[in-house]
Amino acid sequence: MKTALQLQSTFRDSGFIEVSLASVEVPTPSANEVLVQIGASPINPSDLGTLLGPADMTAAELIDNSGTPTLRAPIPAESRRAFSARLEKSLPIGNEGAGVVVEAGESAQAQALLGKTVAVLGGAMYSQYRCIAAQACLTLPDGTTAKQGASCFVNPLTAIGMVETMKLENHNALVHTAAASNLGQMLNKLCSADGVLLVNIVRSQAQVNVLKDIGAKFVCDSSAKSFMDDLCNALEKTGATIAFDAIGGGTIASQILTAMERVQGANPKPENRYGSTIHKQVYSYGMLDLSPTILNRNYGMAWGIDRVYGSNGPRERAGITRKSRT
Amino acid sequence: MKTALQLQSTFRDSGFIEVSLASVEVPTPSANEVLVQIGASPINPSDLGTLLGPADMTAAELIDNSGTPTLRAPIPAESRRAFSARLEKSLPIGNEGAGVVVEAGESAQAQALLGKTVAVLGGAMYSQYRCIAAQACLTLPDGTTAKQGASCFVNPLTAIGMVETMKLENHNALVHTAAASNLGQMLNKLCSADGVLLVNIVRSQAQVNVLKDIGAKFVCDSSAKSFMDDLCNALEKTGATIAFDAIGGGTIASQILTAMERVQGANPKPENRYGSTIHKQVYSYGMLDLSPTILNRNYGMAWGIDRVYGSNGPRERAGITRKSRT
Repeated sequence: MKTALQLQSTFRDSGFIEVSLASVEVPTPSANEVLVQIGASPINPSDLGTLLGPADMTAAELIDNSGTPTLRAPIPAESRRAFSARLEKSLPIGNEGAGVVVEAGESAQAQALLGKTVAVLGGAMYSQYRCIAAQACLTLPDGTTAKQGASCFVNPLTAIGMVETMKLENHNALVHTAAASNLGQMLNKLCSADGVLLVNIVRSQAQVNVLKDIGAKFVCDSSAKSFMDDLCNALEKTGATIAFDAIGGGTIASQILTAMERVQGANPKPENRYGSTIHKQVYSYGMLDLSPTILNRNYGMAWGIDRVYGSNGPRERAGITRKSRT
Repeated sequence: MKTALQLQSTFRDSGFIEVSLASVEVPTPSANEVLVQIGASPINPSDLGTLLGPADMTAAELIDNSGTPTLRAPIPAESRRAFSARLEKSLPIGNEGAGVVVEAGESAQAQALLGKTVAVLGGAMYSQYRCIAAQACLTLPDGTTAKQGASCFVNPLTAIGMVETMKLENHNALVHTAAASNLGQMLNKLCSADGVLLVNIVRSQAQVNVLKDIGAKFVCDSSAKSFMDDLCNALEKTGATIAFDAIGGGTIASQILTAMERVQGANPKPENRYGSTIHKQVYSYGMLDLSPTILNRNYGMAWGIDRVYGSNGPRERAGITRKSRT
């Protein structure tokens, strides 16, 4: 039996998170599977959530756990309850990656991948070897390295998902926060190619420059004194009424909705005495700031802050298809 | 030309709200209209929003405005911008009411209402006379007084709307805050008649008693030390994953979502390492507390806080029908 290393994260009953390299069995691919020797895997924020959770990393230390070097960090007492479901379970980490197919099952589809460099999505990618269905592999162009192909799924699908959600829910332009991120830069290129107007919100002048350099038209710096005016101006020019927020905590979502209402409610109809009836939407998809979200609720008659998972979007909530309740 | 009194509210450029009785022309009904002598009209929270807005009523005073007694109260500086669209416009108040039809247009439908006591919805009901379309009148049973029939629309339609929204969006039970209100008591009777499970949240033991006396099964007192445990217990027994919140400010919406996640995420599937994927929804329909909403966002993967107006619900946002953008 061959074994290999895999990074695992465990929340301990004792109130610590432990991260270590476990020795796990390397599986033999079944007929339609392949074994990928992982060459590269990115660290996305969604990986960090599972890897470190709410642990206090300023108090992290390296310990020796029966010969296995282990990173240990305390979990603040108030955060433990929310993570009780994963206590004492060692979780593998890594949503996506890329590598070379070194073994393949007997099916023609699997055999065709032998020796190819492929990108894969599916968890447990912070492993030396990952066994996965052949149809889950994206064959990379010849000459592409694992490092070049390691991020084929999470950011690209997120960017496409944002633009498609904007269209599906009948908005005309979109807003993105933490917009100088890798994802944010990718979204700018996608919107530019598709002719979609995008309002970028960043947190420093340096980040403004990053986006301007790749051709971004609307960039608002939330650290600038003129931020709310800049944002209203960009929202007026684009007509954006939907935002995707990576930050989560603090007032940014509220500021976006307030600015949308200022623009949409500027010339209200007489019957809209409580504010505009145009729906203003923020989708909260990240947690860069773990502090509470503060909402001032001066957004008129129609607004939402939502986190949507898979088949639980507005379409399903409206009863188009029934969601599972397993 | 006959004139009559009408209560009006005006936001002044000077930073005050003024409420006074204006003398307005009594219209002559057209063919399909009737003139209702208003006998009673309730004060709903939605009326107060238009009547007083964010004015500081602790500083209200009665002034004499060229012979017209006028209530005047200052509007806090930080709230003025949100109400700029109604500056120097005198708005009539009163969403619903009831009274006797004293004049009628020539159509048969209008004539049939002469002398009847009717309930009406449509604004400007804090008036001595209200001219309105005959088909907008709900004829009350003989012997019903205007006072008895004055609240036929706002609360009943809100209660029905809550239950129907719960069903439309595939939830199995619902939560209501400020549940000892007139609306809350009505909702209890409706849910009891329809066999719908309802979790009532109130803010004192006295309010618990009010609801228990009318047969409410699940009542949680947010002022009790055991509130979160009581709420989790009620959510577990009912399976409620949708709430209608009249309060708005503070932590109550967040507490509801947290409790829903504790119940729905108690036995998570292995793939749901970020929390439960069951959608948990709060509809924010009131503003009893004007302070900011505080969200801790420990609600798993699928949640929403929304304020929805008319045709901008999830169904329309999902593209079933296109919303107007006029």
